[in-house]
Amino acid sequence: MDAIHPLTLKRLGIDTYKEPILYLHCENTICQSEGFEAQTQVRVECGDQWIIATLNIIHSNLLKTSEASLSEYAWELLQAEEGEMLSLSHPKTLESLSFIHSKIYGHELDAEALDSIIQDAYLGYLSNIQIAAFLTACAGGRLNLGEITALTESMINAGDRLHWPQELVVDKHSIGGLPGNRTTLILVPIVAAFGLTIPKTSSRAITSPSGTADTMEVFTSVNLTTEAMKRVVEKEGGCVVWGGSVALSPVDDILIRVERGLDLDSEGQMVASVLSKKIAAGSNHVLIDIPLGPTAKVRSLEMANCLKHYLEEVGARLDIKVKVMISNGEQPVGRGIGPVLEAIDVMAVLQNDPKAPQDLRDRALSIAGELIEFSPKVKAGEGKRIAERILTSGEAWKKFQAICEAQGGLKFPKKAEHVKAILAQTSGKIISIDNRRLARVAKFAGAPHSKAAGVELLASLNTRVEKDQLLFNIYSESISQLNYAAGYVETHPDIISIEEQE
Amino acid sequence: MDAIHPLTLKRLGIDTYKEPILYLHCENTICQSEGFEAQTQVRVECGDQWIIATLNIIHSNLLKTSEASLSEYAWELLQAEEGEMLSLSHPKTLESLSFIHSKIYGHELDAEALDSIIQDAYLGYLSNIQIAAFLTACAGGRLNLGEITALTESMINAGDRLHWPQELVVDKHSIGGLPGNRTTLILVPIVAAFGLTIPKTSSRAITSPSGTADTMEVFTSVNLTTEAMKRVVEKEGGCVVWGGSVALSPVDDILIRVERGLDLDSEGQMVASVLSKKIAAGSNHVLIDIPLGPTAKVRSLEMANCLKHYLEEVGARLDIKVKVMISNGEQPVGRGIGPVLEAIDVMAVLQNDPKAPQDLRDRALSIAGELIEFSPKVKAGEGKRIAERILTSGEAWKKFQAICEAQGGLKFPKKAEHVKAILAQTSGKIISIDNRRLARVAKFAGAPHSKAAGVELLASLNTRVEKDQLLFNIYSESISQLNYAAGYVETHPDIISIEEQE
Repeated sequence: MDAIHPLTLKRLGIDTYKEPILYLHCENTICQSEGFEAQTQVRVECGDQWIIATLNIIHSNLLKTSEASLSEYAWELLQAEEGEMLSLSHPKTLESLSFIHSKIYGHELDAEALDSIIQDAYLGYLSNIQIAAFLTACAGGRLNLGEITALTESMINAGDRLHWPQELVVDKHSIGGLPGNRTTLILVPIVAAFGLTIPKTSSRAITSPSGTADTMEVFTSVNLTTEAMKRVVEKEGGCVVWGGSVALSPVDDILIRVERGLDLDSEGQMVASVLSKKIAAGSNHVLIDIPLGPTAKVRSLEMANCLKHYLEEVGARLDIKVKVMISNGEQPVGRGIGPVLEAIDVMAVLQNDPKAPQDLRDRALSIAGELIEFSPKVKAGEGKRIAERILTSGEAWKKFQAICEAQGGLKFPKKAEHVKAILAQTSGKIISIDNRRLARVAKFAGAPHSKAAGVELLASLNTRVEKDQLLFNIYSESISQLNYAAGYVETHPDIISIEEQE
Repeated sequence: MDAIHPLTLKRLGIDTYKEPILYLHCENTICQSEGFEAQTQVRVECGDQWIIATLNIIHSNLLKTSEASLSEYAWELLQAEEGEMLSLSHPKTLESLSFIHSKIYGHELDAEALDSIIQDAYLGYLSNIQIAAFLTACAGGRLNLGEITALTESMINAGDRLHWPQELVVDKHSIGGLPGNRTTLILVPIVAAFGLTIPKTSSRAITSPSGTADTMEVFTSVNLTTEAMKRVVEKEGGCVVWGGSVALSPVDDILIRVERGLDLDSEGQMVASVLSKKIAAGSNHVLIDIPLGPTAKVRSLEMANCLKHYLEEVGARLDIKVKVMISNGEQPVGRGIGPVLEAIDVMAVLQNDPKAPQDLRDRALSIAGELIEFSPKVKAGEGKRIAERILTSGEAWKKFQAICEAQGGLKFPKKAEHVKAILAQTSGKIISIDNRRLARVAKFAGAPHSKAAGVELLASLNTRVEKDQLLFNIYSESISQLNYAAGYVETHPDIISIEEQE
């Protein structure tokens, strides 16, 4: 390194998600002597850690000229403390960037090149625009099977990897989940009660009113360390924890956030993303559910079959068994939208309540059945019946409670205090339900931050309703949010469209 | 739009270059109801302007929950004032993004698609990662001649365009300039004195100790509006102004900054970048100089010839004459490094000082000669002699002074007060000069912000020096910067390598 300039660290509390940003005052002499300006990539050293950050320049008194600040992610990467000293210099050109260039120019990348790119993304050396270039260069079918396999392995290696003594460790994943599709919370206890090991990690909501981890959090804690997760699975055979709290294929989160900004789904990246998480979690038998439908993530059978081929092939090359099921993804599953209301659906199914949503029950049993059939003791076609037996006998509900206890104690869902009923304004047949706007109503009501907030959908597509019949309830923990959500419904009367009939 | 949330604007003074960022407090109810989080793209409305910005979340008291802030570029795009109200909502999917996807998947883009992408980049609707995806998808030879032509036109249309009454409007451009290569300041007055129109815009230093605009600023003002630039050219036939102060192909700056972050030069983008600036400035005869050398931007004859072909073809399709010269780019040009020291070189050439650097003089005359030969009255091969006559007669120096007066008044360069001589530590032959580190010495001494700071190089490659002979002088306006630069030289004695001889 040619030049070292010490600066004192001050915290400004700016969260840029996974983008390391360095903040310096405009009159800082370093900017002048080094030619640093806004958007320059700067090597930032603190103690024995270093990262490469993008520079933002402060033209106000947020910082003194002798101070520097960092985005929250950069603080974390550097393990820095307020008041510590920072050294800045020009970064050397990254080797990984030359591999990205090579891919841009259409060359095949070997395992070493992909390792270098993924490691540098993991360590915070690559900027978001560099990651965007990598993802773009790989999209459009530009990764072959060998590259997807190597990419999956690189992503597994950048993070923790769990190992289990059991031979059969299973997992499932839905690509582009459907609203209310909380099958995971039902099938994990069924499969664990059957005796298989299922170390499940799930995501939180990003733009939806609830993610599987948010719904599980209604019952118990989901912020477990890798060690705590290991203990739960050793004791109960299964768990449902938040993927963000364990470091299994952590690069995936970095790549996905950039992909989302590009609105880009590349097949190769999707395959590596799914399989790396599962393999890092120690699974060797994985069921992938691909819901297919006009508003689902996968919209054509061709795309679904292409993904199926890649998933099975890459799985085989990495020595794990991958089974792919293509399912109907046209309708939401269950009645609740929002963590507590979804948890109530889940509990109704697990407790064999006759009023439980049958679509959710049936879907969970199908997937559980497929997972159970991974066991060599089970004949093809018998899995679903076994799953149903475990559910009906109450074993699944017992196992679910035991898993919750092991994760930190069981709590029961409680509906929100304030509720507003939305009634049919006319009689007729329900010809469409706008899921996107229903989800928005649930978010206006406070979901997912307010766990009990959400929407309880009581009408079904293609059924007849009478004027003033209850279509859905809005739940909220605050009157003002309830009114806001109800006001939105009032100005959007076509969220549920009813066709008048003779 | 489905939801509007008003917030009061507060200025934080954060410069992110050309990236629109929105800052909100983490406890803002909008983040919760809309599911906004760090790195979400948000539609931001203020008065009758709107942009799409990337969200950063503030976890400190920099903002109240009822306040919002913007990056400096977003303030500018929205023409917003502190205290004004801001409305936020989810942006609709941009059509331009679907065109970018189309290019990622290998399809040809038509003029309408390229217009949409460039307009959205210009208006601040596309994020940096989306621009990075576009540039990546176009790199590696993935733009054909028709696309490069359409892209050039789109870039011209997004900004101002100058028109001149003269038939012959000339310009020149060097692709990846060499250190100290200030030929522009010499050839512009020669060509203007000859009677051609040459409306020249130049860049400032980004990572180097001086850009052409910085050196010109030693003599006169370069921050001219488009109108002021027009008046200077109408009066004197030529000018040298800073490209950043006029809005000629302004999208170029946005694209270049992202390209720099990717360390990516795509031929198509380079051609569109150069020609759009020239055509927007109203030129119809353009000379492109491609310095070829191991440390120049263009390093192979193959690449130089490929660029030459594209430049000439696209020029022909857009009805302008483009001449390309491939020149020797192995050595720096002139003696000074830093604005004032380079200005002194330029003045020595213009004043026909016998001690003026002959490489700079010769290079400027060659390019001026080529430009003069654009005139139908001049026979091929006669241009350089005409240029030399104009220089030797003093006409060029007179014209240069007149241009400076028209741009705001002429000032003369003045060397810095503090100087430190660096002597040869041994006798022998100079076998290498590390230009990159010499540039760094000039920057440590204060260049380009301190105009008079820099390095005056007095040794030449492949010549013999005696022990204690002067190799170069470091100039600085502050003792501490001078010592810092000298200290750097002391720890890097091989900046100029001398091989001892028998």
